Amino acid sequence: MSESKNDSLLQKAETERAEYAEHNGQAHDIISLRQRLQSTNPADIAEDFENLDDEQLVTQFRMLSKNTAADVFANLSGSTQESIVNAIQDYEISHIVDDLFLDDAVDFIEEMPANVVKRVLRNLPKNKRNMINHFLQYPDGSAGSIMTIEFVDLKEFLTVEETFQRIRRIAVDRETIYTCYVIDSQRRLLGVVSAKTLLLAEPEDKIGDIMDRDVIYATTCEDVENLANDFRKYGLLAMPIVDNEHRLVGIVTVDDVLEIQEEEATEDFEIMAAISPSDDPYLKTSVWVLTKNRLPWLMLLMLTATITGTIIEGFQDALASVTVLMSFIPMLMDTGGNCGAQSSTLVIRNMALGEVESGDIFRVWWKEIRIAVLCGGALAVVNCIRILILHGNIVIALSVSLSLYCTVLIAKSMGCMLPQIAKRLKFDPAVMASPMITTLVDACSLLIFFTIAKITLNI
Amino acid sequence: MSESKNDSLLQKAETERAEYAEHNGQAHDIISLRQRLQSTNPADIAEDFENLDDEQLVTQFRMLSKNTAADVFANLSGSTQESIVNAIQDYEISHIVDDLFLDDAVDFIEEMPANVVKRVLRNLPKNKRNMINHFLQYPDGSAGSIMTIEFVDLKEFLTVEETFQRIRRIAVDRETIYTCYVIDSQRRLLGVVSAKTLLLAEPEDKIGDIMDRDVIYATTCEDVENLANDFRKYGLLAMPIVDNEHRLVGIVTVDDVLEIQEEEATEDFEIMAAISPSDDPYLKTSVWVLTKNRLPWLMLLMLTATITGTIIEGFQDALASVTVLMSFIPMLMDTGGNCGAQSSTLVIRNMALGEVESGDIFRVWWKEIRIAVLCGGALAVVNCIRILILHGNIVIALSVSLSLYCTVLIAKSMGCMLPQIAKRLKFDPAVMASPMITTLVDACSLLIFFTIAKITLNI
Repeated sequence: MSESKNDSLLQKAETERAEYAEHNGQAHDIISLRQRLQSTNPADIAEDFENLDDEQLVTQFRMLSKNTAADVFANLSGSTQESIVNAIQDYEISHIVDDLFLDDAVDFIEEMPANVVKRVLRNLPKNKRNMINHFLQYPDGSAGSIMTIEFVDLKEFLTVEETFQRIRRIAVDRETIYTCYVIDSQRRLLGVVSAKTLLLAEPEDKIGDIMDRDVIYATTCEDVENLANDFRKYGLLAMPIVDNEHRLVGIVTVDDVLEIQEEEATEDFEIMAAISPSDDPYLKTSVWVLTKNRLPWLMLLMLTATITGTIIEGFQDALASVTVLMSFIPMLMDTGGNCGAQSSTLVIRNMALGEVESGDIFRVWWKEIRIAVLCGGALAVVNCIRILILHGNIVIALSVSLSLYCTVLIAKSMGCMLPQIAKRLKFDPAVMASPMITTLVDACSLLIFFTIAKITLNI
Repeated sequence: MSESKNDSLLQKAETERAEYAEHNGQAHDIISLRQRLQSTNPADIAEDFENLDDEQLVTQFRMLSKNTAADVFANLSGSTQESIVNAIQDYEISHIVDDLFLDDAVDFIEEMPANVVKRVLRNLPKNKRNMINHFLQYPDGSAGSIMTIEFVDLKEFLTVEETFQRIRRIAVDRETIYTCYVIDSQRRLLGVVSAKTLLLAEPEDKIGDIMDRDVIYATTCEDVENLANDFRKYGLLAMPIVDNEHRLVGIVTVDDVLEIQEEEATEDFEIMAAISPSDDPYLKTSVWVLTKNRLPWLMLLMLTATITGTIIEGFQDALASVTVLMSFIPMLMDTGGNCGAQSSTLVIRNMALGEVESGDIFRVWWKEIRIAVLCGGALAVVNCIRILILHGNIVIALSVSLSLYCTVLIAKSMGCMLPQIAKRLKFDPAVMASPMITTLVDACSLLIFFTIAKITLNI
């Protein structure tokens, strides 16, 4: 494990000791806590802070040096940030938010309730306030909403030596200096130059001659999911974001993309399990909120499942006369659900990664239908043999197996088509995952089963 | 969209024209194709290559310049890499593999069948062959298996000026120069220094004085999932990997972590949908392989579902006497499955992200059981009212709702416990997702339902 994890454990023990001492008025241990906070990684401090009560939180937060405070603050969860903001003075808030990188400041403000936002914005310098207000207008999930403006911009006519001077002058406030962006007098993006290229160039080389003009960029309204796919494909450390006039307005850095990619996947996991997605960490979310995220979906799906119940009701006389048919219902429903889940999961995931696009709908369906023929055939044969051995009735065995075969075909077709149709209708394709597909396939499979059984068994 | 995507479309059209011309012996267009290949991003060339037939593939691959060829090759899928290796000469193979970064070479060799591996290794220089053989020994999914050795190492006594000279000398062959690693004479890791720190330091400063000694590192056997979590937490661009003696043996860079994080999530999506995971892109995988990845799970789950069928058989006389009971089976089974899926998905995802650890098992269960009480209660009340309105039988309404309530409690308990138990038993927790949980919960819910119905309805 990494050293700082051990440090973090050690620190926790030490912190507890320091706090105990604090209550006994031993100033010496407060100093040692302050020193320890200074030598610990801000991400670890933030993790530890999540477990403190409000009073300890604010006390320890105030012990942090100015720079560390902003770093730690950016790493805290929304609820902990709120606790701190509610406990500190207005001038302290303005210092912290002013020290945050713009993307972190916007993130923080987006998560706060209205009264906190008001208080924070009121205490900021006017130019910072205007900038944050501007950034808050980009729609959630767009490149504009996560970009930052702390980048290094260069002009074509600079020499490498002048560029290094410029970088040294402004580096401290920039999120990255490893990719620099070359713009013209209208701030239109002309090219990029990496710190590696600069280091390998001669001091008198012109930026215009060594820059790479083949820039991978995105516009402010680009979907962050696509952004992540491009970062992965091209192995980028940062990507420039331009407006409609091709003017450079910000950059997105790889550390944010790593986080976005994780959040987008988690969101899909949640939606695909019929849970309203949430950014809060599971163990810190209250039972009420977790219930609120889950109950509406469960209710909707429960009521939808009554359609299947109604189908059974319609055939209950037939079932009562050949009661053994009932015992095949769970197998049919589960297998249909599983087949549909396999197809829909693969399609949803591949759509998120940009591997399957909307033009591929029939190509995907043709693939899935062939898989369904193979899987359905194998399952039906095994099932037929099993029923023959256990029940010895060839008509029942064939009816059930034929129903199973049709169920697999329908489940796989629905599983691959519905997410793509959902996307065309501007819904999130992840909604068409296992729970919804299962409910829909259940109804179809039972209709098929009862119809086939009625015909073959003459009931 | 990014410029190079448009380029890629343009290029595709141009390529087709070039190929047509080629068949007509127009050498001029071959030159223009070659030029175009040279000015296109290797990641885009690789994407286009995936759609070429074998003959075109090898022709165009040979047109690439030596450096581009290695970059393009590293971006190709396993099956396309294999097609190229099977078509080219031994000396060409050795050139390509020699030009790859070590982690890409190891990746490539891991995916090839034995005969190709033999041929590739035979044609490599001895030192490269030994190194690759050494790297192949790290277990799949460990930090050692994805690290690379192309990093910049420094000694404490170097000055910043000497360091820049060293970086300029070796930068071309290094995967990153933005984080440099300081080691002692036994190659033990002492600290890191970023290119930013170097740029902001004075030329005569000593590395030992400006380096950061609080290094976030991992050992070769660390799980790549944990690695990704640390990259995200600390916003790293690269992480040093050490052996048991704390000697620096490699680094992992953020571009690989971005890919790993995506692959790990995709793998979990697949396993959680009862599919054996595979690295191949969906649209390029054959129907046979896709079927092979899915059928065993479907078969296993189908046979498991017969347990539920047996339970129904055991109660078929009771069901035949009160046939309306049958119509509640789908609703009970589906709701149980959905409740279990919600809990298991959240727990599996949070375990993968390191948010829920093995010590949290009872804390999670306590959370889930309270959610189950709330969700189960709400669902049972709505369900009870619905049955009363539709069937007007209070005993049936209460029996079904009580069964539903118990089902929700059991489903949520199993959903949160089984993934954690699976992990303790060294299985992948993702196996205990919706399909498996659904099958297990089905059996429980029907047993409860029939038992309650038998008692209350006296059948």
